[in-house]
Amino acid sequence: MASTISLVVTVVFLTTFTCANPVSQETSNSDHYHQTNFHRLPPKFHHSVDQNDGAYWRQKAQNTLNQKLSSHDLIGKAKNVIMFLGDGLSIPTLAAARTYLGQSQGHTGEETVLSFEEFPHTGLSKTYCVDSQVADSACSATAYLGGVKANIYTIGVTGNVKLNDCSASLNATNKVTSILKWSQDAGKSTGVVTTTRITHASPAGSYAQVANRDWENDAVVKSSGQDPDKCDDIAEQLINSVPGRNIKVILGGGRKEFIPKNVTDEDGKSGARTDGVNLITKWKSDKSSRGSSSKYVWNREQLLNINPRKTEFVLGLFNSDHLEYHLLANATKEPTLEELTRVAIQVLSQEPKGFFLFVEGGRIDHGHHDTQAHLALDETVEFAKAIQAAVDLTDERNTLIVVTADHAHTLSISGYPTRGNDIFGIAGTSDSDRLPYSTLSYANGPGYKKPLANGSRYNISNDNLADVKYRFPATLPLGSETHAGDDVAVFARGPWSHLYSGTFDQNFIPHVMAYASCVGNGRTSCKPHV
Amino acid sequence: MASTISLVVTVVFLTTFTCANPVSQETSNSDHYHQTNFHRLPPKFHHSVDQNDGAYWRQKAQNTLNQKLSSHDLIGKAKNVIMFLGDGLSIPTLAAARTYLGQSQGHTGEETVLSFEEFPHTGLSKTYCVDSQVADSACSATAYLGGVKANIYTIGVTGNVKLNDCSASLNATNKVTSILKWSQDAGKSTGVVTTTRITHASPAGSYAQVANRDWENDAVVKSSGQDPDKCDDIAEQLINSVPGRNIKVILGGGRKEFIPKNVTDEDGKSGARTDGVNLITKWKSDKSSRGSSSKYVWNREQLLNINPRKTEFVLGLFNSDHLEYHLLANATKEPTLEELTRVAIQVLSQEPKGFFLFVEGGRIDHGHHDTQAHLALDETVEFAKAIQAAVDLTDERNTLIVVTADHAHTLSISGYPTRGNDIFGIAGTSDSDRLPYSTLSYANGPGYKKPLANGSRYNISNDNLADVKYRFPATLPLGSETHAGDDVAVFARGPWSHLYSGTFDQNFIPHVMAYASCVGNGRTSCKPHV
Repeated sequence: MASTISLVVTVVFLTTFTCANPVSQETSNSDHYHQTNFHRLPPKFHHSVDQNDGAYWRQKAQNTLNQKLSSHDLIGKAKNVIMFLGDGLSIPTLAAARTYLGQSQGHTGEETVLSFEEFPHTGLSKTYCVDSQVADSACSATAYLGGVKANIYTIGVTGNVKLNDCSASLNATNKVTSILKWSQDAGKSTGVVTTTRITHASPAGSYAQVANRDWENDAVVKSSGQDPDKCDDIAEQLINSVPGRNIKVILGGGRKEFIPKNVTDEDGKSGARTDGVNLITKWKSDKSSRGSSSKYVWNREQLLNINPRKTEFVLGLFNSDHLEYHLLANATKEPTLEELTRVAIQVLSQEPKGFFLFVEGGRIDHGHHDTQAHLALDETVEFAKAIQAAVDLTDERNTLIVVTADHAHTLSISGYPTRGNDIFGIAGTSDSDRLPYSTLSYANGPGYKKPLANGSRYNISNDNLADVKYRFPATLPLGSETHAGDDVAVFARGPWSHLYSGTFDQNFIPHVMAYASCVGNGRTSCKPHV
Repeated sequence: MASTISLVVTVVFLTTFTCANPVSQETSNSDHYHQTNFHRLPPKFHHSVDQNDGAYWRQKAQNTLNQKLSSHDLIGKAKNVIMFLGDGLSIPTLAAARTYLGQSQGHTGEETVLSFEEFPHTGLSKTYCVDSQVADSACSATAYLGGVKANIYTIGVTGNVKLNDCSASLNATNKVTSILKWSQDAGKSTGVVTTTRITHASPAGSYAQVANRDWENDAVVKSSGQDPDKCDDIAEQLINSVPGRNIKVILGGGRKEFIPKNVTDEDGKSGARTDGVNLITKWKSDKSSRGSSSKYVWNREQLLNINPRKTEFVLGLFNSDHLEYHLLANATKEPTLEELTRVAIQVLSQEPKGFFLFVEGGRIDHGHHDTQAHLALDETVEFAKAIQAAVDLTDERNTLIVVTADHAHTLSISGYPTRGNDIFGIAGTSDSDRLPYSTLSYANGPGYKKPLANGSRYNISNDNLADVKYRFPATLPLGSETHAGDDVAVFARGPWSHLYSGTFDQNFIPHVMAYASCVGNGRTSCKPHV
């Protein structure tokens, strides 16, 4: 009896509520399955009073219905295709990021809509790889760009290529080309944009074929016992090989992969190459020898000064390593993902035959690996801004935009926090050890909190959860939080975007992009009965 | 250097691999963001050699493409609507359950497809409630059945009704009717099927209006300080009120809510009511006084002996409380969800005007709350079987089937287990404390493992993870693992199922069902311009 009475009192007067232990089954149905036995904290933001009325929700739903009924499937040819990849953008990350965005704007947050969540079509992508239950960014890039599932840690090669098997990766039948290559073959302009090193696994999926994703420069190929003259490193493939050398727009980080050890870059950082080759210089001379207008840029100002009508090729490397997190970056020096995306679209739009552009929000993943949820969610918001820019700069009738993730992460949004409760805050207090717990946590990773000497759980109320570098709790310690095996979402708008519906294997994704834009060797909308 | 060399050796010879700590950034790109620094165990199942070939994946994707291109949106009137609700069926649960199903059939598992994952259309449902960031089954039932978001713990009432506010719930403007009621008003047959007590929150969402989901019988109303003569309990509403008393098929558990304390049921269990009323007797006399053929059944045999052509009303209560988990049930006594669903459809199909049926797989949620992942995943597989039965018994052209969840849970599928690794097994070993960790874990709950006296993490290799009752690890102890705030999926087939696309608020769901089947007060496909 105490159970439900205490509920009244605490809700009305304290805006917290507690259930006592279940009373006898004879008089109560408070079984342990739906108990909310925790203290709820007062929310930072309060929902609008309108939301208490049925009319508010009925009208909102009818508006959504009207909107969906008035939209029609687009079945023309997609002149342009833009693929946005949120690295590690798991489905739980979506709800957490939209709540963060909304709260940063003074709202409760849960009702906020990320730009791509307004896209009309959604599907679920199964991310497992040939030899792994949970994907990494390499095998998954081979799937969502090349249309073929591969072994973990390998890029642009089939499952016949095992990790580090340089020889097998050279066998033509084992190579997997990407939609970027297919688009070039169809005469389109192509571009690759990322916030990571441009040689990192996801962007490399568009242009490289390697038996180990770590082979970003020749020194790493050598250190893994392979011959860099036989198996080209990823940076080398980007600058010297097809389709890399024909890519019109290359924007990201990772300068060190392109310059020799004894050379320092614009920030004074040393290169990583041991073959003595400066691939940036090589890129410039290649474009020059082809008589093409080209621009190498290494900071934000230079990027924004590019004249898209007069620049055929752009190479922009804004950091020796990955670009800095948006929240921590020097905003005058490093461009945002939105700025990178704008410039890329402006340059690529000069091609009358259309373009294929790959854009990665690559550091969502890194924030998660460090259980630094602030950084992961903020990178997600930046990713959403870049997508909004693409929406603004293109026409839905001729541009297919696809947004997805390569794999999930182990972030949970748990407890029963009140509406508008700080997404980075405390969800409640455990009924077992009476200690608080955060809404956000991970299954594993460096945020693991060691128990105290007396065996009791670490008390996070001593922590500054508002610190953007705060590492959220994890079940067990790992140097790097792992990926997760749950499905990721696909959001799409534009021609044939309605084909992204239902649950499908991740490698289905580029087959639809190819169908819509009439590239590649499969069935296309231009040759629908091949 | 050691990093990549050790990768070669261990993969080839040991089928495990380990990365040492990152070597100097100058010679390696093994940054901590994508390290797979753990031991991988040999898988129990091996993938087919075909999957090593690019042709396998290209053909699979082209088959999916052909299938999607050959399907057309159905825009006729939905004579019948069946809504399947997987309570707590989070998106991570989908991948885990399909892997469990596939492995139980001798396959690697990850590639397995649950019945409803073959449905052509999918959307993402935002589950937050009016006053809560994370939903419970009560406010969410009000959303997905009534089309209006509500306060946590309340059913069939707007946000103007606070928890336990009996008076406010009686105010007509605060009441929320459900699609079950709208369907009855349109002359359709209706049914409710669940594996929980039939008075539990999810099924109650179809017929009840209460300010506290715990008010399943009059004793609980009283114990919460309310007057049961003023605010009817849920069981009473089901038997005496509209739409409850007009529901043709009622199948589930929870006999105790219907019979007095001093009366024992067919299993010798006492009732919970203190008003002296036997609602089962009342149900029988009501149907008899209306001159309707009716059948009360309480075990599997009686259920399967029902003649659907000669039975207008069916009440089946198969347990004093919830039905037992499928894995633990007495299979000769308790029917499966598939059997319940078959009988319900057969009886309801007798109505020429069509039917609305609500079917809940209610104990997925319970398995998760106890961090008993085996039970949660097995209940998900049983849920999928029930959906397959509905597909087999109906015609896609006139029956809309919608499958969704009310809210998520905190289950993660973590680590980088090899393909086909036992989904209930060990994913790897921590690089920090050198102890193993399981693929499945929860953010919180009773599976929390206390650290040892020396402060070291509990070693789960001593546990029997194959035990169907095993409680998987959690970050922190809670009597009951909590729900989670991430979006859930909607899968749909049949007329207007293509409207379930994109991300939308959960309360949008019944508006589409009403549109498709021409019931309710909103816009419908029969009156498209109202």
